[in-house]
Amino acid sequence: MTDHPKNGSTAAHHVVVIGAGFGGLQTVRSLKGAGVRITLIDQRNHHLFQPLLYQVATTILSPSEIAWPVRDLMEHRHDVTTLLGTVTGIRDGQVLLSEGEAVPYDTLVIATGSRHSYFGNDQWSEFAPGLKSLEDATLIRRRILLAFEHAEREADRARRAAHLTFAIVGGGPTGVELAGIIAELAQKLRPQFRNIDTSASRILLIEAGERLLAAFDPSLSDYAATSLTRRGVELSFGKAVTDCRDDGILLGGEFLPCQTRIWAAGVAASPAADWLGLKGDRAGRVPVQNDLTVEGHPEIFVIGDTATVPAWEGKPVPGVAPAAKQQGSYVAKVIRARHAGQTPPPDFTYRHLGDLATIGKRSAVIQFGKLRLRGQLAWWFWGITHIYFLIGARSRAAVAWNWFWSHVRGRSAVRLITHSARGTDKDHISE
Amino acid sequence: MTDHPKNGSTAAHHVVVIGAGFGGLQTVRSLKGAGVRITLIDQRNHHLFQPLLYQVATTILSPSEIAWPVRDLMEHRHDVTTLLGTVTGIRDGQVLLSEGEAVPYDTLVIATGSRHSYFGNDQWSEFAPGLKSLEDATLIRRRILLAFEHAEREADRARRAAHLTFAIVGGGPTGVELAGIIAELAQKLRPQFRNIDTSASRILLIEAGERLLAAFDPSLSDYAATSLTRRGVELSFGKAVTDCRDDGILLGGEFLPCQTRIWAAGVAASPAADWLGLKGDRAGRVPVQNDLTVEGHPEIFVIGDTATVPAWEGKPVPGVAPAAKQQGSYVAKVIRARHAGQTPPPDFTYRHLGDLATIGKRSAVIQFGKLRLRGQLAWWFWGITHIYFLIGARSRAAVAWNWFWSHVRGRSAVRLITHSARGTDKDHISE
Repeated sequence: MTDHPKNGSTAAHHVVVIGAGFGGLQTVRSLKGAGVRITLIDQRNHHLFQPLLYQVATTILSPSEIAWPVRDLMEHRHDVTTLLGTVTGIRDGQVLLSEGEAVPYDTLVIATGSRHSYFGNDQWSEFAPGLKSLEDATLIRRRILLAFEHAEREADRARRAAHLTFAIVGGGPTGVELAGIIAELAQKLRPQFRNIDTSASRILLIEAGERLLAAFDPSLSDYAATSLTRRGVELSFGKAVTDCRDDGILLGGEFLPCQTRIWAAGVAASPAADWLGLKGDRAGRVPVQNDLTVEGHPEIFVIGDTATVPAWEGKPVPGVAPAAKQQGSYVAKVIRARHAGQTPPPDFTYRHLGDLATIGKRSAVIQFGKLRLRGQLAWWFWGITHIYFLIGARSRAAVAWNWFWSHVRGRSAVRLITHSARGTDKDHISE
Repeated sequence: MTDHPKNGSTAAHHVVVIGAGFGGLQTVRSLKGAGVRITLIDQRNHHLFQPLLYQVATTILSPSEIAWPVRDLMEHRHDVTTLLGTVTGIRDGQVLLSEGEAVPYDTLVIATGSRHSYFGNDQWSEFAPGLKSLEDATLIRRRILLAFEHAEREADRARRAAHLTFAIVGGGPTGVELAGIIAELAQKLRPQFRNIDTSASRILLIEAGERLLAAFDPSLSDYAATSLTRRGVELSFGKAVTDCRDDGILLGGEFLPCQTRIWAAGVAASPAADWLGLKGDRAGRVPVQNDLTVEGHPEIFVIGDTATVPAWEGKPVPGVAPAAKQQGSYVAKVIRARHAGQTPPPDFTYRHLGDLATIGKRSAVIQFGKLRLRGQLAWWFWGITHIYFLIGARSRAAVAWNWFWSHVRGRSAVRLITHSARGTDKDHISE
C-alpha cells in the first residue's frame, strides 16, 4: 500500500469528499475559505449535469455540453486536491482506492449517488442499459441510431419491425422524457432513410404502476399520457417486465421482440453501506441521523442519493439534485462550525422546490407547491431553469446556442455512432 | 445471403461508392442530377474532417464538431441510399457486406482511405494507437488525460516520470501538430494539479529520418523544429522505434519508459487491393490507370489514399484531402459523360494546392508553390482555410465559437475521460 504523496504533509483538518456530483461538489464549494484541506475523489474526471443526460442519449446535446472536468472547476481552489480513483472501502479512518492507495481523513463526506435497480436481475443491464453516466448516454445513442441503420438494411419484415421497436421501462421523469424525444427523433429522421419509414417506429413506454410520473398530481400524469400518445408513444400500464434478452423483453408473460431496450425504473444506491459495514434500506441507501451523520460516527456524513433521511415532513428526502445540493451546503456549515469551535446548525431540513418533467419539444409538466403548469409555457420554464443551473457560462452559452439552432433548423446534429464492433473497444479497457 | 430490399427495384444505372471520406463524398456530390442511382456505403455513420482530428485527441474540439452523419448530408439527395456496413469483398459485380448482403453495381467507386502502417508490427497498435478515426481520437485523449491523473496519484518518482512522458512517433504534419499541442496542454493544466508539475512533462517527437515535415522546404522544417523546441518538445532524429510495449518503447536500442505513445508514422491503404485480387504497392495502394480505373475494369474506379496514380508531374499523387476531392470530381465527370453517351474527359491531372501544418497555437508553416509562410500569419491563414472547408454552417460556427472562446479564456474545455475500465466497454461490442 502506497501512501498518497501529500497525505500528512500538512496539519490542517482534512476533509475527504467522495463523489463530484451535485452533493459532493456543493459541499466543496460551500467549504471555500473554511480553513480545511479537502480531497475530492471521483471515479470519473467530470461532474455531470444528469438532468440533461437524456438529451445526450437522444442526439440533441453532445457529452461535452453537459459535463465539466472536476479539475477545471477546482482550478482556483488551492485548498482542494482532486483525485481520479475508485473507492473500494473505508477502514480505520482511511478511504481505500483500487490501486492500493489509502487516503486518511478527519472528516468524510460520502456523496456517491445511485444507479438504476434491476430488482435482483443485474444481468438485464447488458440488454437494457440505464441512464446514469455519459457512457450510458452514448451507448443508448449508439443503439438507437444503429436500430434505424439495421432496419434500413433489413429485408425481412419481422426483423425490420423488431429493429424499429423501442421499449422504455419505467414511467418516471426519465422514461417520459426518453419516450417523448425518441418519438420526435423517429419523426425527424424520416427524410433520411430510403427503405424504411422511421416515423412508423413503435415506441413503447412501460410502467408497472397505474400512471406515469407517480410523484406528480394525477392531472399532470394524465396530461403527460395524452401528450405522449399524441406523439405516437404507446403506453403500457400495470404489467411488469419479467425478462430482458438480447432480442426482446417478456412483458406480462408475453414476448415483445425489440432491438432497443432502455431501463429507467428503480433506484439502487452506491455500495457505501457495505463500505461502512451498515445495513442499507431496500434501495441500499445508508440511514443517517438528522444531522446527516452516521450513528456513532459524527465524522462521517452521507448525503444525496446515497443516504436516506426522513427530513421532508417526516418522509424521506427525494433523490433529486436540489436535495443533494441542500445537503451539501448543510454539511459544509456543520464542518465549518465544528472547525471554528461554534455550535453546529440544527438538524437538516429539506425544502422541496418542485418537480419538472419534459415530454418532448415544447411540452412539459411542472408542479411547484400549489402551482401546476403544463404544455409550452411549462417547457420554456423548464428550459430556462435548466440553462440557468448549468455550471459555467461557456456551457450555458453552448447549450443555449444548440437549442436555438435546433429550433431554427429543426434538426439535431449529434447523431454520431462511435465505437463500432471493429473499433478500438478493447483498447478502452487498458486504462 | 439476403438481397438488399431496393436492389434491382429500378432500372437506372447504379453507382456504388464505398467510403464517405473526402473522395467518396465528392464523387456523390458531383453526381448530383446525373440521372444515376447511387448507394453510398461506409462502415461508420459519419463523414470525418480528418485534418482537425488531432484537436479532438488533444481536448480542443469535441467529436461532434468535426463529424457529420452521412444521412444528414444526404437527406435531400433522393437519388442516394446510404448504408452503414462493412465491406468484406467484391465478387461478380457485387459488393459483399459482412452481414451477408450483396449489393450489385454497374459502376463501382472505391474510396476507402488508409490507416497508419506499423511496418509489419501490427501488434504495436494496441500500445501506440494511430489517429485516423473519432475512436482513435477519444482513445488518445483519454490516455493523455489519464497519464496526468495517474501521475497526480503516484508516489514513486520513476513511475511518475513515466506517466509524464509522451512519445509521438513520426515527424510528419500529424506528429508535429500533436507534439506542439500536447506541450501546450501540459502548460495549461499546470494550475489544476497539486502534486505534480504538468509543465515539466517530457514530450518526445521521434523522427527516423533527418528532419521534420519531409514534404516541406528544409527552411520550414528548421522553423518547425525551433518552434517545437521552444515549446518544450524534445526532438529525436535518425533513430527508429524497434519495439512498442505497454510500459514504453525501444528507441535506437534503448528502452524509454513512457505511459503514452502515439503512432503518426507510415501509411497503409485499406484492403481494397485484396478485394480486387490485385497486388498493391508497398503501402497496399491499388495501382490505377490515368483515368483512375483498374486495368481491365473500366467500371471500377479507385481514388484517394486507396489508389496510386502517377499524375503529379510523373510522381504519385499525395494522400491529402484536396487530392481525394479532385479525384472524386473527376470520376463523377467520367461517369456523367459515359451515362450521357459523351466522350469522357482526358486523363486525371492533379493540381497541388500546397502544404500546411500547425505547430501549436499561433504558429504554423505553409508552402504554396513558391510562397512560404511561417509563424502567426501562417497560423491565421491555416485557421481560416480550415474553418472555411469544414462542411456545414453549424459546425463552422461551433468551431469558430470554440476557438474564439479558447482564446478569450485561454483554456480548453473538452477534457472528458469516458469509457473507464469499469464502464460499459463490453456493451459497445454488442452492435
